[in-house]
Amino acid sequence: MSTTIDVPESNNVAKEKVLLLGARPRPGGWKKGVAIMDFILRLGAIAAALGAAATMGTSDQTLPFFTQFFQFEASYDSFTTFQFFVITMALVAGYLVLSLPFSIVVIIRPHAVGPRLFLIILDTVFLTLATASGASAAAIVYLAHNGNQDSNWLAICNQFGDFCAQTSGAVVSSLVSVVIFVLLIVMSALALRRN
Amino acid sequence: MSTTIDVPESNNVAKEKVLLLGARPRPGGWKKGVAIMDFILRLGAIAAALGAAATMGTSDQTLPFFTQFFQFEASYDSFTTFQFFVITMALVAGYLVLSLPFSIVVIIRPHAVGPRLFLIILDTVFLTLATASGASAAAIVYLAHNGNQDSNWLAICNQFGDFCAQTSGAVVSSLVSVVIFVLLIVMSALALRRN
Repeated sequence: MSTTIDVPESNNVAKEKVLLLGARPRPGGWKKGVAIMDFILRLGAIAAALGAAATMGTSDQTLPFFTQFFQFEASYDSFTTFQFFVITMALVAGYLVLSLPFSIVVIIRPHAVGPRLFLIILDTVFLTLATASGASAAAIVYLAHNGNQDSNWLAICNQFGDFCAQTSGAVVSSLVSVVIFVLLIVMSALALRRN
Repeated sequence: MSTTIDVPESNNVAKEKVLLLGARPRPGGWKKGVAIMDFILRLGAIAAALGAAATMGTSDQTLPFFTQFFQFEASYDSFTTFQFFVITMALVAGYLVLSLPFSIVVIIRPHAVGPRLFLIILDTVFLTLATASGASAAAIVYLAHNGNQDSNWLAICNQFGDFCAQTSGAVVSSLVSVVIFVLLIVMSALALRRN
């Protein structure tokens, strides 16, 4: 009797091991935790990118005095770099929204490699885009604040204070999204490991 | 009797499967190829980053006429953004040189996960640095070429042609290194997969 009980037992153990094998090793749920964190960070990055695009896009200041010939007005339209900024931050926000479903797939299947790889590659591309627009806008904002003596470019922030404050805020917001992108890529790379 | 034979059999099968689990799958040497490509791309990125820093660092033009009070001179010192550019591109080149040993380790042990993860994380950080300096310098170079009417910043490239050409070259060189960084990260991410 004892043997007949033993046999199914050992078979069950073997079957269990085969099942475990088929479904790849699953050492703890930290990958799921990383995936959920990824999703939350993406929501934060969407807010930062949309905020940056909206703040820059609505920056517009008209001075209360004008000469016979023209009014003094500054808006993001005046600077090619700021136009680039609005377009790229809107693109980045759009990409982040479209990446949410993939992030959800990663939460549901934390051991799937495909969606994670897809996200890490596209994240790298859009990190570059966000950094480029944020840094170039920062260069212009710095110039607007401080001017440059050697090339005789005067600081315009004395006149256009609100405009400068708004564009500075947009730059800071875009740099927040850059930091989140770096975190996303590092987390995805860590979670791509074998176990 | 049949039961006593069955039991060790199923144990052996289970052991073999455990052994397979312990020794990761090694399907072909494409990871080694990726690692060698990684090394070569790093050499290219070093050349691009060093070239960018050197070109920008030596940009200096003095106009052949001067007034009673001062001489007209433009150098990278004049622009904070260009100083930032020289420093960051030198940092990036230094990091790339220091990363070569790790790239060699990855060539020798294509299946090691540690060095690859280390490289992908630091690559992401220095990609951000290189993109930020390249993009902000590009914004200033654009302004030097075209000026900006609304803020009354005049284009200085009419006077300082050589200076503008040199800084533009440095920006292009830095963007080459950015593209190489993106390739490096994408390749490392692909090679981080399980097989």
